[in-house]
Amino acid sequence: MKKVAIIMGSDSDFEIVSEAILMLKKLNIEYEAHIISAHRTPSIATEFASNAENNGFGVIIAAAGKAAHLAGAIAANTNLPVIGIPIKSSTLDGLDALLSTVQMPSGIPVATVAIDGAQNAAILAAQILAVSDKILSCELTEMKSKMSEAVIKKDITLQTKIASI
Amino acid sequence: MKKVAIIMGSDSDFEIVSEAILMLKKLNIEYEAHIISAHRTPSIATEFASNAENNGFGVIIAAAGKAAHLAGAIAANTNLPVIGIPIKSSTLDGLDALLSTVQMPSGIPVATVAIDGAQNAAILAAQILAVSDKILSCELTEMKSKMSEAVIKKDITLQTKIASI
Amino acid sequence: MKKVAIIMGSDSDFEIVSEAILMLKKLNIEYEAHIISAHRTPSIATEFASNAENNGFGVIIAAAGKAAHLAGAIAANTNLPVIGIPIKSSTLDGLDALLSTVQMPSGIPVATVAIDGAQNAAILAAQILAVSDKILSCELTEMKSKMSEAVIKKDITLQTKIASI
Amino acid sequence: MKKVAIIMGSDSDFEIVSEAILMLKKLNIEYEAHIISAHRTPSIATEFASNAENNGFGVIIAAAGKAAHLAGAIAANTNLPVIGIPIKSSTLDGLDALLSTVQMPSGIPVATVAIDGAQNAAILAAQILAVSDKILSCELTEMKSKMSEAVIKKDITLQTKIASI
Amino acid sequence: MKKVAIIMGSDSDFEIVSEAILMLKKLNIEYEAHIISAHRTPSIATEFASNAENNGFGVIIAAAGKAAHLAGAIAANTNLPVIGIPIKSSTLDGLDALLSTVQMPSGIPVATVAIDGAQNAAILAAQILAVSDKILSCELTEMKSKMSEAVIKKDITLQTKIASI
Amino acid sequence: MKKVAIIMGSDSDFEIVSEAILMLKKLNIEYEAHIISAHRTPSIATEFASNAENNGFGVIIAAAGKAAHLAGAIAANTNLPVIGIPIKSSTLDGLDALLSTVQMPSGIPVATVAIDGAQNAAILAAQILAVSDKILSCELTEMKSKMSEAVIKKDITLQTKIASI
Amino acid sequence: MKKVAIIMGSDSDFEIVSEAILMLKKLNIEYEAHIISAHRTPSIATEFASNAENNGFGVIIAAAGKAAHLAGAIAANTNLPVIGIPIKSSTLDGLDALLSTVQMPSGIPVATVAIDGAQNAAILAAQILAVSDKILSCELTEMKSKMSEAVIKKDITLQTKIASI
Amino acid sequence: MKKVAIIMGSDSDFEIVSEAILMLKKLNIEYEAHIISAHRTPSIATEFASNAENNGFGVIIAAAGKAAHLAGAIAANTNLPVIGIPIKSSTLDGLDALLSTVQMPSGIPVATVAIDGAQNAAILAAQILAVSDKILSCELTEMKSKMSEAVIKKDITLQTKIASI
Repeated sequence: MKKVAIIMGSDSDFEIVSEAILMLKKLNIEYEAHIISAHRTPSIATEFASNAENNGFGVIIAAAGKAAHLAGAIAANTNLPVIGIPIKSSTLDGLDALLSTVQMPSGIPVATVAIDGAQNAAILAAQILAVSDKILSCELTEMKSKMSEAVIKKDITLQTKIASI
Repeated sequence: MKKVAIIMGSDSDFEIVSEAILMLKKLNIEYEAHIISAHRTPSIATEFASNAENNGFGVIIAAAGKAAHLAGAIAANTNLPVIGIPIKSSTLDGLDALLSTVQMPSGIPVATVAIDGAQNAAILAAQILAVSDKILSCELTEMKSKMSEAVIKKDITLQTKIASI
Repeated sequence: MKKVAIIMGSDSDFEIVSEAILMLKKLNIEYEAHIISAHRTPSIATEFASNAENNGFGVIIAAAGKAAHLAGAIAANTNLPVIGIPIKSSTLDGLDALLSTVQMPSGIPVATVAIDGAQNAAILAAQILAVSDKILSCELTEMKSKMSEAVIKKDITLQTKIASI
Repeated sequence: MKKVAIIMGSDSDFEIVSEAILMLKKLNIEYEAHIISAHRTPSIATEFASNAENNGFGVIIAAAGKAAHLAGAIAANTNLPVIGIPIKSSTLDGLDALLSTVQMPSGIPVATVAIDGAQNAAILAAQILAVSDKILSCELTEMKSKMSEAVIKKDITLQTKIASI
Repeated sequence: MKKVAIIMGSDSDFEIVSEAILMLKKLNIEYEAHIISAHRTPSIATEFASNAENNGFGVIIAAAGKAAHLAGAIAANTNLPVIGIPIKSSTLDGLDALLSTVQMPSGIPVATVAIDGAQNAAILAAQILAVSDKILSCELTEMKSKMSEAVIKKDITLQTKIASI
Repeated sequence: MKKVAIIMGSDSDFEIVSEAILMLKKLNIEYEAHIISAHRTPSIATEFASNAENNGFGVIIAAAGKAAHLAGAIAANTNLPVIGIPIKSSTLDGLDALLSTVQMPSGIPVATVAIDGAQNAAILAAQILAVSDKILSCELTEMKSKMSEAVIKKDITLQTKIASI
Repeated sequence: MKKVAIIMGSDSDFEIVSEAILMLKKLNIEYEAHIISAHRTPSIATEFASNAENNGFGVIIAAAGKAAHLAGAIAANTNLPVIGIPIKSSTLDGLDALLSTVQMPSGIPVATVAIDGAQNAAILAAQILAVSDKILSCELTEMKSKMSEAVIKKDITLQTKIASI
Repeated sequence: MKKVAIIMGSDSDFEIVSEAILMLKKLNIEYEAHIISAHRTPSIATEFASNAENNGFGVIIAAAGKAAHLAGAIAANTNLPVIGIPIKSSTLDGLDALLSTVQMPSGIPVATVAIDGAQNAAILAAQILAVSDKILSCELTEMKSKMSEAVIKKDITLQTKIASI
C-alpha cells in the first residue's frame, strides 16, 4: 500500500496534526510526517512534492495556519491528491487558513477538511487509498460501524443522565 | 477504471457542475450525473450513497448551495471519498455553502473544493482514481504541463499588450 | 398533549441542550432526549424523524455544531415543525452551525433559534404546542409576566448599585 | 383553523413575501398580510401582536431587512409562535437581517428561516398549524411527495441534457 | 441642563455600562440608569421613550447585546437623539449586536458607538448636550487636552522602557 | 440655529450624501457641504474641524468609504458631535467602512449610522440640534407622524394588491 | 534606478493591474510585467523571485485572487520587498485574497494593499524606491500636491452642484 | 543608514510592538519608538509624519487597533513608505483593525502586514532599507538561511517525537 505524507508548516501545528497520525496508525497505514514550510523552506516543499509519487506516497496531507499556502504549494508540484487542514491560529479563528486552503484556482485542487480537522484528513486519506484497497475499505466500514455504536451507547448513557435531572 | 458520480442538489446547480462533467469527459473518465436532494429526496440520497461502491463508483462529487448538506449526507452513507462543491446562491456569496460543506464533524470527512470550483472537483476525482491508475496519472501530468504552457503563452501575449500602453 | 423530542448530534452538546430540557420540565411538557448524529447514525436519524409523528411527538428540537446538518436531516423526513439550535464549537464562534441550520432550501424549513439558544428552543416548542392547548398558552403568558417582573426587580436593585458608585 | 398573519416592515419586502402568500393560498390556509414597521409604526406593531391570538391568528410571520427588529418586536408582545424572515437589502447580503432576527435573547424566541426564505416561512407556519390539524398535515405530506417527484423528474431531464454534452 | 438616560437590556450589561456612568459623573451630567428590555418589558421601553423628553432627558443611551433591538425600540418612540452601545455576548464577538444596532432603516437613526464602547457613548451624549451648553463644551475641551497630555506622558515612559530592552 | 456641516471624502460619495442634503433642506436646517479627504487633504480636514464650532456649526456629518477615517479624523479635532456615514464601495459591501467608522477608541466617539444611511445622518443631526430647539423638535415629531401615516397608507394599498393575487 | 516587477497570477487580473502599470509609467519608473502563477507555473515563480535582485529589480508587486499565494510564494524566494494586491474574484468579495495575502507567517512579510488596490501598489513601490532616490521622492511630493489640489477643485465644483439642488 | 520609526496608538500595543523593536535591534537598524494617537494627539501625529523624512527616517511602522487610522494618518502626511500593523483588540479578532489599515483609498497606500504581525513589519522595514543597502541585504539573506535551518532542525526533532507515539 502507498504511504501517506503528513506535512505541517510549523511545529506549533503538531498538537492538532498528531490526531491525524494516531488515526493513520490505528488504520495501519504507513506514513511519514515532516515540518516543511511553504515560505521558510520553499525549495524543500517543492522537492518533497515533486518526488512524493516516486517515493511511494499515495496521498499528501498538508496542515498550515494563517495565510496557509502549504497545501497549495504542494499541490502545485504533484498530481497526487493533496488534503489541506486549515489550522486555527491566534486571530480570525481559522477563517484565514480555511480560505487560503480551499479557494484554490482552477487546475490545482486541494481537498480541504474542517478547521483543525486532522482526524478527518487521515480518514479521507484512508478513503482515497481504499479506492483500490479492499482490505482498507473493510477496515473503514468497520470503524464506521464502531463509531455508530459509540453514538448509540452515548444515547443510552444520556437516558440515565436525564432521569436524574 | 471506477466511475465518478456527480450529484447536484438542484438543477440550478447544473451550469456550474457542467464544468466538472466536461473535465471528466476530457480525461476519459466514466461518470454518471444525477439531481438528488439531501432534503427533498433523502432516501434516494441514502440509497445512492449506500450502493455507490457496489455500483462501480470510486469517487462521489456532490454540489449544493445554501445549507449544503448533500456532500455530508452522501459521506454519511459510504466510505468512498466524497468531494463537496459549495455552490454560491443568491445571498451570502457562497459562505453558507462553504461552511456547511467543509466543517464536517470528526469521522465523516468531505473533501471540499473552492466555492463553485466544479472543474477542480473533477480534477481531484481524477487524482484520486489516478493513485492506482498509472495511465490516468500520466494524463494528469500532461494536462498540468499544458496548463503551464498556456500560462507562459499568455505571458508572451501580455508583453505585446503592455508595449502598446 | 404531544411530546417534544430533543435530538443532539453529540454528547458534548448536552451542557447547552440541558437548558431546553429544564425549560420543558418547568412547563410540564413531556419530552424525550436522544443523541443521534446525522452523519454517524444517519439511518437512526431518518427512522426517528419518519416515526416521530406516529410516536406522539408534536415538535422536534435538533441541536448540532459545525456543519450542523441534524435539524435539516430530521426536517427532510417529517412534517412536524423542526427547531434547530446551532451549537458554538471550537472555531468560527458558531457561525458555521448557524448558517448550516438556517439557510435551508425551499421546501424544507428549519425554525432556527440563536446560537446556543436552547432555552428559547424549548419556549418556541411550547408556543407551537400552545397553539392548540389553551392551558399551556396560559402558562406561557404567566411565565412571560414573571420574566417581565424579574426585569423590573433587577432595575430596582440597579438603583441601589448606582447610588453607591 | 387559525389564521396566519404575515407582517412586513416595508412595501419593498413584498416581492419576497408574496412567495409566502402564494404558498399559504396553495395550502388553503387563511391569512392576513400587513405592512407594519417596528420603528415607524411601533404602536401598531404592539397592538397587532397583543391582539393576534384573540383575533384568530395561530402563527405570525414577520419579514424585515437591515436591523430587522420586527419579528422580535412582535414576539415580545404575543405568545404565538413568531416566524422571522430576514430580508436581504442593498448592503451586507442579508447578514444584518439574519443576525438581528435570529440572535434573540433568552425568553423571546423567533423561529428564523433562511434569508429571503418566504416560502419556507409559510411551510413552517403550516407545519405549526398542522400539529393539531390532521387534514393540513396530510396536505403537507402530499406536497412533500410532489416535491420529491419533481426532483426525480428533473433528474430524468438531466440525463437527456448530459447525453448531448 | 437636560439629563442623560442610560438604558441597558440586561443586568449582565452593567459591567460595561458602568463606564458610561462614571464618565457622566466625571462630567457632572445628571443621569438616570435603568434596566429595561425591549423584549421582556416592551411596554416599559415604549413608555420610557415616549415620556423621556417631558421627563427632562436630552439624550438616551441604550446598551444591548445579541439581536440588540433596544436602541431602535427606544428611537422609534422618541425624537431625542438615541445612542446605541452594542454589547459583546458569548458568541459572534458583538457583530450581531453591532449590526442590529447600527443598520437602522430610514427615518429612525441610532447613533452607534463601538462594541462595548460605553465610555464613548457618555462622551457623545456630553457632546450633544454641549451643543447648547458652553460650560460643558469647555469641560470637554479640557478633558480632551488631558487625554492628549496622558498620551504624551506615556510616550515619555515608553522611552525608559525601550532603553532597557 | 447652528449649521450642519456635511463632509464627504470623495465626489463619488455625493450620490448617497445628497439624501442627507435633501433631508436637511426639508427640515430648513442651514448646512454647508464639502469634499475633504482625511488622506488627500489632511490639513484641510484638521482646519475645518478645529474651526467648525467657531464657524457656527453644531454638528458635523462625515461620509467616507473603504478605510473610512474621515469621521474619526474630524472627531479628533473638535468637540462637536460627529456623525459618520460608512459608504459602501466596490468591495466588502461597506463592512470595511462600517468598522473603520464605528470602532473608535475611547475618548473620541463617532455617532455612526447605517452603511449608506445618509438620510438618517441628517435626521440624527436634526435631533441633536432639536435638543435645544423646540421648533425643530416639533418639526421632527410632525415628520415622524407623516412617516407613520405613509406606512399605514401603504398597508391599505397592500390589501388591494393581495386581493388580486 | 532599480526596476519594479509586476507579477499577476492570471491574465484576468490584467484589467486591475494595468492601473499599477499606468502609475509606474507616469512616475517614469522602469518596470516589467509578467503572468506567472504560483500554482500553475511554480518553478517560474521561484526562479523569477530568486533572480529578481540580480536582474535589477528593487521591488516586486504580485497580484492574485482567491487563495492568493503568489505574493507569498515570491516573498519566500527573495529578500526584496514584495507588495501584494488581493484581487476580487467571483465569490467572497476579495476577502479570501486579502487574508491569503496579508496573513503571512513570521519571517516572510508581504506588504499588502487594499483589495484591487493596484494604483496604490505602484505608489508604494515608488515610495520604497524613493527612500534612496531624491528625485523620485520629489515627484511623489508633487503628485501628492496635485492630488490635494484635485480634491480642492472638486469641492469647488460641488458648491455649484449643491446650489442647484 | 536611515532610521525606522515605530509608532503605536496606545501603550497597550507595546507587548505586540516590542517584537518589531527586537527584530530591528537584531538587524542593527537604528529606530525610534513613540506612542502617538491619531485621535488623541492628532497634531503630534501630523507633525511627526511631516518631519520624518527630514529627521532621518526611511520607513515608518504604525501599529493600532480597532478603527486603526494611525498608519493612514501618518501616510497622509509623508511620502515615506508606511507599514501598518493591525492590532487585535477585545472584539472582532482584529478584523476591524485589518480593514481600517489595509483598505486605503487611491493615492495613499499603507503596506499592511498580518494582524499582530510586528516581527514581519520590522523585517519589511529592513527589506525596504536594504533596497539601497547591500550589507543589510546580506544580513537578511543570512537570517533567512538560519530561519530555514531552524525549520529543518525542527523536522529532525519531530522524527524523534513521532517515533515515540
